[in-house]
Amino acid sequence: MAGRAVEGAAEEIAEGQDAVGILGRSRAVVEPELRAAVTSLPASMRRIARYHFGWEHPDGTPAAGNAGKAIRPALVLTAAAALGGPQARASAARAAAAVELVHNFTLLHDDVMDRDTTRRHRPTAWTVFGDADAILAGDALQALALGLLAGDPHPASRAAAARLAACVVELCAGQQADTALEARAPGEVTLAEVLAMAEAKTGALLGCACAIGALYAGAGEEEVEALDAFGRQAGLAFQLIDDVIGIWGDPARTGKPAGADLAARKKSLPVVAALTSGTPAATELAELYARPHQEGEEERAALAVERAGGRDWAQAQAADRMSRALHDLSRAIPDPRAADGLLALAEFVTRRTA
Amino acid sequence: MAGRAVEGAAEEIAEGQDAVGILGRSRAVVEPELRAAVTSLPASMRRIARYHFGWEHPDGTPAAGNAGKAIRPALVLTAAAALGGPQARASAARAAAAVELVHNFTLLHDDVMDRDTTRRHRPTAWTVFGDADAILAGDALQALALGLLAGDPHPASRAAAARLAACVVELCAGQQADTALEARAPGEVTLAEVLAMAEAKTGALLGCACAIGALYAGAGEEEVEALDAFGRQAGLAFQLIDDVIGIWGDPARTGKPAGADLAARKKSLPVVAALTSGTPAATELAELYARPHQEGEEERAALAVERAGGRDWAQAQAADRMSRALHDLSRAIPDPRAADGLLALAEFVTRRTA
Repeated sequence: MAGRAVEGAAEEIAEGQDAVGILGRSRAVVEPELRAAVTSLPASMRRIARYHFGWEHPDGTPAAGNAGKAIRPALVLTAAAALGGPQARASAARAAAAVELVHNFTLLHDDVMDRDTTRRHRPTAWTVFGDADAILAGDALQALALGLLAGDPHPASRAAAARLAACVVELCAGQQADTALEARAPGEVTLAEVLAMAEAKTGALLGCACAIGALYAGAGEEEVEALDAFGRQAGLAFQLIDDVIGIWGDPARTGKPAGADLAARKKSLPVVAALTSGTPAATELAELYARPHQEGEEERAALAVERAGGRDWAQAQAADRMSRALHDLSRAIPDPRAADGLLALAEFVTRRTA
Repeated sequence: MAGRAVEGAAEEIAEGQDAVGILGRSRAVVEPELRAAVTSLPASMRRIARYHFGWEHPDGTPAAGNAGKAIRPALVLTAAAALGGPQARASAARAAAAVELVHNFTLLHDDVMDRDTTRRHRPTAWTVFGDADAILAGDALQALALGLLAGDPHPASRAAAARLAACVVELCAGQQADTALEARAPGEVTLAEVLAMAEAKTGALLGCACAIGALYAGAGEEEVEALDAFGRQAGLAFQLIDDVIGIWGDPARTGKPAGADLAARKKSLPVVAALTSGTPAATELAELYARPHQEGEEERAALAVERAGGRDWAQAQAADRMSRALHDLSRAIPDPRAADGLLALAEFVTRRTA
């Protein structure tokens, strides 16, 4: 196993170990699996799924396509390659597609629940096809994902399916916690609660993706758990940085206006850190959050979060989570050359600063 | 196999082969599996699921419980017993629970989409917990179902999971067709379309339940497919009778007012048969359906459906479907004694006439 891992890593290095390259090569392997799975759907469900993935316009004509960066399937393939070499990577293509299907099922449903109208720079599926069709297409994608694994003869597919199903339950609990926390008064939300929510909502699937890659490489339980922990911590770091961008980010680069999260009164991680800081700026922020947003007030709110230490806290937390992630990574894959691809992906997802 | 099947059938006969007895014995086996699976959910999801199953009140205190007749898991167990005897029946308990979890996931989601406010004589989950929580609990139950099968060491569990996942996709397409047909003008809906919708929405899961039972008995592909066909045809017969009850049924026995489907302008099977009959009564019914329902008009509408031949057609169709079901059943299980339990269940679900 170790020999094959090093060999696989060497090949990855020869091919270029930058994250953009890894993501591109991963999409080349996963997209055919994904398209084949979606093509197997009945026409009514296929139409909505193809629109959601950016492959088709609402009328069914082909679209240029922006199905997202597909980080999760890249984590599956890269984890498999790191622990089992190119053969393990190749064997995990269907499992990688299953993980991406689960991610997209949650996006379809989250957009309905959150009433989000834009996804990947296009109107969300529910705004085009209605709530019922978006819910049903999401249901069908979850079934497709777990069905893909049930039909995969690889010896790891059963354990992967059990893990992915458990992860779906955790994602649901995370989304439930998110909506429940948003409905509560700002002063009644603790930092521990939003961190737990972010781990369930974002960390769990990144961790599951890495763990499934390890399973397809035939890795032992300790390595599988260490890679799950790596993905979870990297996912939390990603969420912290994403929340920072949601307040101070550059709209030209992020596609959403700076301060949008503040205007929407979102209880993102830096905001809750600020609100629970016990500083005068926390009081000012709490007062702002207690009344509806007024045009042009974002800057004042952002300054209050910053003065209350929310920005510094989030950045320090992100760095701390990344260092925990690297520790978990080295537990699973002691050879730094073999771990290089996963490291590049973790750095890529957390380096999206404005 | 045949010897064991006869032995199993003999035992079932000894225990009483009536449907009510079969259903009761099935619930005794399946409910512990179901409760254990639901208990494994995170608290937020568990609460909604327990309410939905009738085990708890909204505040989490225990309720007397009315989780429905649980016909689908009884079909799984009875099919397994018919083809593989008591040992096969015992081995299929987890799979039976998985089928019931899928059924309940679709109920949770359908109630949200259809805005139905009552289920099993209680307020639906979305009216108590909100749309988002009901959608998420449904998502979690689907994951739980397919996760149960992934964690089941029985050699048939993989094939059962693939079949159940494919069935979920069909259920989604059926529900999509239902909402799409309801949104169309009454004159633009064909009988073939509503029959196909009813097969996907109702027949598919009954067929899948029987097929999974056969898989757990180690049956061959032909027997599995024949039992799937049996369940589908029985499911269609059930839907036809259910639609007849929805128009002419006794509210005291059905729990819903007679004519409710007509007042809601539902394009149920007898209605579409009437509308497409080319009779003068069809024209009268089309005129009624073209305008909003007026208090007390149900009787006139019911009479129009009857004069247009909708009632007779539905009853003849139901009888025809049942005879097809029996033919499929005898293909899968030639020994009438072994087939007796499945026959009793099929007759039970279709004998709900007013």
